[in-house]
Amino acid sequence: MAERVLIVGGDAAGMSAASRIRRLDPSIRVSVLEREQVVSYAACGMPYHLDGRIARPESLLIRSPAQFESMGIEVLTGHEATEVDISAASVRAWLAAERSHRTLRYDHLLLATGASAVRPWLDGVDAENVFLFRRYEDLLDLSSYLDRRLCRRVTVVGGGYIGVELAEVLTLRGMSVTIVEAAPTLLPRTLDPEMASLVEDELHRNGVSLHLASPIEGFIAEGGIASHVSTSEGVWSCDVVILALGVRPNSALAKAAGIALDEFDAVATDAHLRSAIEGVWAAGDCTSTVSRITGKRIWVPLGPAANKQGRIAGANMVGQRLAFPGVVGTAFVKAFALQVGSTGLSETEARLSGMNVTTSTITAGDRAPYYPGGQDTCVKLVADASTGRLLGGQVVGRSGVPGRTNVVATALHAEMDIQAFAELDLGYAPPFSPVWDPLLVAANQLQRA
Amino acid sequence: MAERVLIVGGDAAGMSAASRIRRLDPSIRVSVLEREQVVSYAACGMPYHLDGRIARPESLLIRSPAQFESMGIEVLTGHEATEVDISAASVRAWLAAERSHRTLRYDHLLLATGASAVRPWLDGVDAENVFLFRRYEDLLDLSSYLDRRLCRRVTVVGGGYIGVELAEVLTLRGMSVTIVEAAPTLLPRTLDPEMASLVEDELHRNGVSLHLASPIEGFIAEGGIASHVSTSEGVWSCDVVILALGVRPNSALAKAAGIALDEFDAVATDAHLRSAIEGVWAAGDCTSTVSRITGKRIWVPLGPAANKQGRIAGANMVGQRLAFPGVVGTAFVKAFALQVGSTGLSETEARLSGMNVTTSTITAGDRAPYYPGGQDTCVKLVADASTGRLLGGQVVGRSGVPGRTNVVATALHAEMDIQAFAELDLGYAPPFSPVWDPLLVAANQLQRA
Repeated sequence: MAERVLIVGGDAAGMSAASRIRRLDPSIRVSVLEREQVVSYAACGMPYHLDGRIARPESLLIRSPAQFESMGIEVLTGHEATEVDISAASVRAWLAAERSHRTLRYDHLLLATGASAVRPWLDGVDAENVFLFRRYEDLLDLSSYLDRRLCRRVTVVGGGYIGVELAEVLTLRGMSVTIVEAAPTLLPRTLDPEMASLVEDELHRNGVSLHLASPIEGFIAEGGIASHVSTSEGVWSCDVVILALGVRPNSALAKAAGIALDEFDAVATDAHLRSAIEGVWAAGDCTSTVSRITGKRIWVPLGPAANKQGRIAGANMVGQRLAFPGVVGTAFVKAFALQVGSTGLSETEARLSGMNVTTSTITAGDRAPYYPGGQDTCVKLVADASTGRLLGGQVVGRSGVPGRTNVVATALHAEMDIQAFAELDLGYAPPFSPVWDPLLVAANQLQRA
Repeated sequence: MAERVLIVGGDAAGMSAASRIRRLDPSIRVSVLEREQVVSYAACGMPYHLDGRIARPESLLIRSPAQFESMGIEVLTGHEATEVDISAASVRAWLAAERSHRTLRYDHLLLATGASAVRPWLDGVDAENVFLFRRYEDLLDLSSYLDRRLCRRVTVVGGGYIGVELAEVLTLRGMSVTIVEAAPTLLPRTLDPEMASLVEDELHRNGVSLHLASPIEGFIAEGGIASHVSTSEGVWSCDVVILALGVRPNSALAKAAGIALDEFDAVATDAHLRSAIEGVWAAGDCTSTVSRITGKRIWVPLGPAANKQGRIAGANMVGQRLAFPGVVGTAFVKAFALQVGSTGLSETEARLSGMNVTTSTITAGDRAPYYPGGQDTCVKLVADASTGRLLGGQVVGRSGVPGRTNVVATALHAEMDIQAFAELDLGYAPPFSPVWDPLLVAANQLQRA
């Protein structure tokens, strides 16, 4: 009898693993349990349906269950895994459509259960016009509500990546947008305050109201509709609310089965993505990984790592022995015409973990000064003050930001110090960069610091 | 008496050195000899005056002699250095305006004489309508000629970076452009043929005629005007000709003074940019450097290295002991809407130097497939077949090319192998990149190769 791999979760990590196994070993039976009706959807693209930039939400479904089936992967949609029985090596699933349970045996199990949006217990949070924005169904629900109702004023609770992206698309949709954020700055987890202020300025310029340092306290609901948002700083009216307060790993299934969790409540895994239980693996947002900078565990629930982990877990489940070496933590966000990138540690993060850091923050042209269309780019570099080792970088500008951020990420992978970074032979052509790239301007300043 | 530094050449390397010395040691007298009337001009920006993108050529003059003078740097324009007397530690200069010579003593001498455009000895090359395109005066001469004469058909001799940039701007100026190139492909020194063909296609789409594998043989001139271009492949008529056949180091001054040259006829220097003569230094296009990939000397006459070398030579001339660690050889060029980047060794170059290489060439979207405006990007990676070490990369696309090329350049600095490169934690956001960046798609394919 052929070996059977069960995968719980049909998104980035799960489907990457399934595809990898299928490619490496056609003899293995691969089944994916997915509680939704869709798999492999591009969650990061969801905001861009709201302003019509992506006309059809179905475009976000990268591959259909049928396409995976045609590759020889069994895709069981509408199957919600409710219990893992380690001793029996089986998973029990609830089939809502059939109102029945089903038990599936496995030889290897991959938990790729992802993460869920945080929904705080607040007065009025269950109102009809308070939405989460994580699952594909969340997008459909919100989009349908906005199409049906006259909503002019939206409050986005949370000023992280999703909050900022929602502010852009809902403004472009013609709505009046307010962001409520508990921290004193936008994007507090990845940008230091002076860099975040550039994003705040761009949102202001585009008419977004920001209420920073304003922890949400609840909603005043009338007739099941939240009419007002209440924070420590005040109360104001709104037509619709979107909660963008971050995500938490979906690890309840693992926990109930006695599979060890880690300090992030994520499934504890080693570098090979094995859980503490033989034959059970985890990949993607439901597990944590290692920071290549600090060597410590971190939880970075982002698509690229989920895809890479899925590939590695898949390979390892069919006998390879690959390691996922961790991340440096690179992320991009678009905020109207602004491009924002961050990688590695911010100054705030580095100081919080007790490091002695030196930084430089510079503003320089993103192309040759005489070439038309140039704009300022702001670069911040963070380095260890004693060793000179580069610890992180933040880039905010209107062109070239993703590439410049990725250069810093690559340098972090290589554990470069600031001198090696300043030596980088970056390309130059007037339409694309000044002769001293802003990254090198920042590095030169950091060397002098 | 204060020490005196003499610098021959007032462009990137020379003025960087002068500025650096001035910053580090206000007591030293710094004098720059420049044969032209301008210093510190942006040669790389010159093409973009021809289509009016840069309206005033003066915009290319980054700093005026007066600005440097106000920093305390003596700028002697119209001073052509004609002889270095090593034993007397002096330089003799010809002042054309005054029709006289002048001799200047030095304690330290920096040769920053740059490079000159190749002007082959061909029939008709001295015709009034055959132009070089290297010096600021070349731009003024050509621009003035095009403004005064009815020129419809231009032949650009040479299909390197300058040739391709000239093809773009002269087409946009409304001219009919022909490129004549001896090699069978465009950009033969930096792109492999299959990557160059993408550039050739873009030029064709924009109406540029390409005559590849067509070494120039001469010009048929009538009344001092070249009316026809002649190659091994045929003869055709033209109204104006621009020679873009590359550059050679300006080392005659050094050679005549008995200062050793290297295999490129450039001034031989060590890592500290010292020439073979005590107290005489060289920086920029008149000297060569080391390839960080092969460890061998290479001559890469590009602005970023000249600027970096100038800074280092300047610091060393006032007592520091910095090394210029070489380049990987990164370059960008814009060809109409196409962005082209290359870094490190091409497959052709690597094979020519006897290396056993493995390559991958992929085409992938430059952003998430569902996000509007995405275009294909083509990436080629070259690695050592036995060790897996990355040797070079080429990127051609319509967005994000400079950044992706610089990521490869950074990986080359770090001597990454292809596995380490495939692990890179590059950022992801739908407007900027797909979840698998094209670089990682290429790396994954190379790992399977």
